[in-house]
Amino acid sequence: MRILILGGDGYLGWPTAMKLSAAGHEVMIADNYLRRRLMREIDCEALYETPNLHERIRLWTAHSGKEISSRIGDLDDWTFISFVFEEFRPEAIVHYAEQPSAPYSMLNRAAARLTLDNNLGVTFNVIHAMNEYTPDAHLVKLGTMGEYGTPNIDIEEGWIDIEHKGRKDKFLFPRAAGSFYHTTKVLDTDMLWFYVRVWGLRVTDLMQGPVYGIKTDENSEDSGLYPFLNYDEVFGTVLNRFMVQAVAGYPLTVYGKGGQTRGYLHLKDTLQCVQLAVETPAKAGELRVFNQFVETFSVNDLAEIVRASGERLGLNVEIRNLPNPRKEAEDHYYNPVNTGLLELGLQPNHLTEAVMDDMLGTTMNYRDQIVKERIFRGVRWKNGL
Amino acid sequence: MRILILGGDGYLGWPTAMKLSAAGHEVMIADNYLRRRLMREIDCEALYETPNLHERIRLWTAHSGKEISSRIGDLDDWTFISFVFEEFRPEAIVHYAEQPSAPYSMLNRAAARLTLDNNLGVTFNVIHAMNEYTPDAHLVKLGTMGEYGTPNIDIEEGWIDIEHKGRKDKFLFPRAAGSFYHTTKVLDTDMLWFYVRVWGLRVTDLMQGPVYGIKTDENSEDSGLYPFLNYDEVFGTVLNRFMVQAVAGYPLTVYGKGGQTRGYLHLKDTLQCVQLAVETPAKAGELRVFNQFVETFSVNDLAEIVRASGERLGLNVEIRNLPNPRKEAEDHYYNPVNTGLLELGLQPNHLTEAVMDDMLGTTMNYRDQIVKERIFRGVRWKNGL
Repeated sequence: MRILILGGDGYLGWPTAMKLSAAGHEVMIADNYLRRRLMREIDCEALYETPNLHERIRLWTAHSGKEISSRIGDLDDWTFISFVFEEFRPEAIVHYAEQPSAPYSMLNRAAARLTLDNNLGVTFNVIHAMNEYTPDAHLVKLGTMGEYGTPNIDIEEGWIDIEHKGRKDKFLFPRAAGSFYHTTKVLDTDMLWFYVRVWGLRVTDLMQGPVYGIKTDENSEDSGLYPFLNYDEVFGTVLNRFMVQAVAGYPLTVYGKGGQTRGYLHLKDTLQCVQLAVETPAKAGELRVFNQFVETFSVNDLAEIVRASGERLGLNVEIRNLPNPRKEAEDHYYNPVNTGLLELGLQPNHLTEAVMDDMLGTTMNYRDQIVKERIFRGVRWKNGL
Repeated sequence: MRILILGGDGYLGWPTAMKLSAAGHEVMIADNYLRRRLMREIDCEALYETPNLHERIRLWTAHSGKEISSRIGDLDDWTFISFVFEEFRPEAIVHYAEQPSAPYSMLNRAAARLTLDNNLGVTFNVIHAMNEYTPDAHLVKLGTMGEYGTPNIDIEEGWIDIEHKGRKDKFLFPRAAGSFYHTTKVLDTDMLWFYVRVWGLRVTDLMQGPVYGIKTDENSEDSGLYPFLNYDEVFGTVLNRFMVQAVAGYPLTVYGKGGQTRGYLHLKDTLQCVQLAVETPAKAGELRVFNQFVETFSVNDLAEIVRASGERLGLNVEIRNLPNPRKEAEDHYYNPVNTGLLELGLQPNHLTEAVMDDMLGTTMNYRDQIVKERIFRGVRWKNGL
C-alpha cells in the first residue's frame, strides 16, 4: 500500500515509517523538522542526537534493504502538500504532523498560536488535499485520550448513545481537554467529522494515551535508528522523563497528589495499532474511533515502578511531590474502554519488570549526556513560564 | 458600561452598537470591513448602499446626540487588537467578528480557509487580549443554533446531563454543524470553554437562529442607519431572501422538501438578547449558553408566510422546490429549549402579519435595485460553485 506519513521524523512518526516499510508498504515521509526547531529554540533537546531524516533513511536502507522516500516542507503550505499528494497519490495517510506538547501550548501566547495555526492548518490542508487528489484514501489521524479529559462516566470509544427525555441519538463522546494542545485535537476531530459527513471521507481517529519506550523491532540493532528521547518537561512523556530523572539522581517530579490516571502504551504498541488501522481501513463516510492504550496507571504508580526498577539496577531513586503547575484533577474516576484495537488484533506489550528494566538500562547508557537544567521548569497552566 | 463591539459594521453589529449606545453605554466598534470586501468580491452586494462606518456614526450622533467610537483594523492582527484592548479597557465585549456565511464557507478551499483562519484567529486573539488586559471583562460571543445540527433528541441550552452506566456528569451539548462556517463556531466554543475552565474567563455564548428584519427602534427614522440587507444566497438569511424574491417576482427558492426547521427571531430581538446578556454578566469561570430564537418555522412555513403577505400587498408570489444544493435533513425532529433569555426578560417580537407586511413593504421600496442574477447560484455542499 502507498502510505504517506505526515510528521514522519517525530518520536512516533519515524518508528512508524520503519515499521510500515518493514511490512512491505511503499512509504513516503513528509516533515518540516518543526519538532527539531522547537526543541532547539526552547533548549529542550533530546537525550541523544539523532541523524537528520535523509541520514536516518540511508541507515534504514542499509539495514533493511528497503527504500523510504521523503519530502521536507511545511504541510500548512498548500503548494507543498498539494505537490506531495499529486505526486505520491497515497492510499493511506498517517497524520502525526502536529505540535504535540501540552506544556508547549501553555508556554505563552506565541506558542499557543503556533499550536493552533499548525495543527488546524495542516489538518485542514490534509482534508482538502484528500478531497482534491485522493478522495478514496484512508486517513489515520493521531488523536489523544487527553481530549476526553477526566469525566465522571466511563469513556467509550469515540461515540456515545444518549437517551434523553425518552428519545435517543448517537453522538461523538463529549470532550473536555486538559491543555490547549489537547483542545486543538478536539477541534481537528470536529473539523474532520464535518467533512466525513459531507464529503464521505474515510477517517480513523486513534485516541492515544502517553507512549513510552525507545526500542522497536526495527531499530534495536542500531541506536542511530532510535527516535528522539525527550526527558524535559515540555516534550518528554511522563515515564520517559521519570527514567531519565532516575538515572540523573533527580527526584521524580510527581505533580500534586499524583493520582492523575491515564492509559499508557509502549512505542511498539503504537506501531502495531497504526499498522492495524492502516491495513483495515475505515469505510467511506465513517469516522472510526479507537481508544489506543494498553493499561492505566496513576502518576504515583509510574513513579513507584521506576523506583523499583532503579533499585534492581542499583539506582537510589527518590520521589518528590511538587505543587502542580497544571490545572487538572489529581484524584478522579477514570474508566476508559479500549476493546476496538484488541478486536482488530493488537497483541499488547505490558509494562513488565523486564520491559521497565531494559528501558532504564538503555537510558543509563546516556547518563553523561543528561542536562539537569532541562528536567524541570514548571510551565504553569495559568501564566506560562 | 464600556462595551467593545467586534464586527460592529455588520448586519447585527451595527444595530447592536446603536441599541447599546441608546441605552447609555460607552460603545466602541472594531471592524475591518471584511464583510463589505467579500460581498464586493463575489458580487453579492446588499439591496441598498450603506454609508461607511464613520459616516454611519456621524448620522447616529446627529439623530441621538450620542457618540460611538470606532477603530478600523483586523482583529486577527495582535498589534491591532492589543492596542484596542489596552486603549479602551472594555468591561464587556460583543463578538460578531466572524465570517458569517455557511454557503461562503462551502464555495471553495480558499473561502473555507479564510473562514477558518478569521474565525479562529480572531477568537483566539480575543481570549488572549482579555487575559492580558481585561481578565474580568465579560465576553458575549455570537454562536449559532446551527452548531447543534438536527439531533433526534431535544436541544437543551448548551449543556446536557448524561447518565451512563449508572454514573452521571454534565457536558456541553453535543454539536454536529451543518456547514464549515457552523463548524468553525463549534471550534470557537471548544476553545473558549477550555480557557474558561483554565483561566476563569466570563463568557456568554448566544446560540442564535436565523435573523430577519431591517428596522429597529434606533434606525426607523433614517434609512441611512439601516443595516445591510443581503438577498443573495451567500450572505442573505432565508426570510430576507424570500422577501426580495417576492418583490422581484422570482419564485421563492425552497431547497428540497422544505421541511428544514429552525428557530428564528427578529433583528429587534437579537438586540434585546445581546443587551440582556451584556447587562447580566456571566460569572468568572462560567460559560453560559442561551439558545437565542423566538419561534420555529420550516422553510415551507416561511415561504407560505411570505406568499400570503405578498397577496395582501398585491404581489403574485410563486414557490419553487429546487434540488437541495446543501447536505441536510429535509424532514427531521426539532425541539430546542429557549427559556433562558425569556427568564432574563426578553419580550419576544413574533412574526405577525403586521410585522411581515411592514418588512415586505419596506423591501418594495427597493424593487428597482434588485439584481436578479444575485438571487440564486446553487452553491453546492459537495463541490462548491
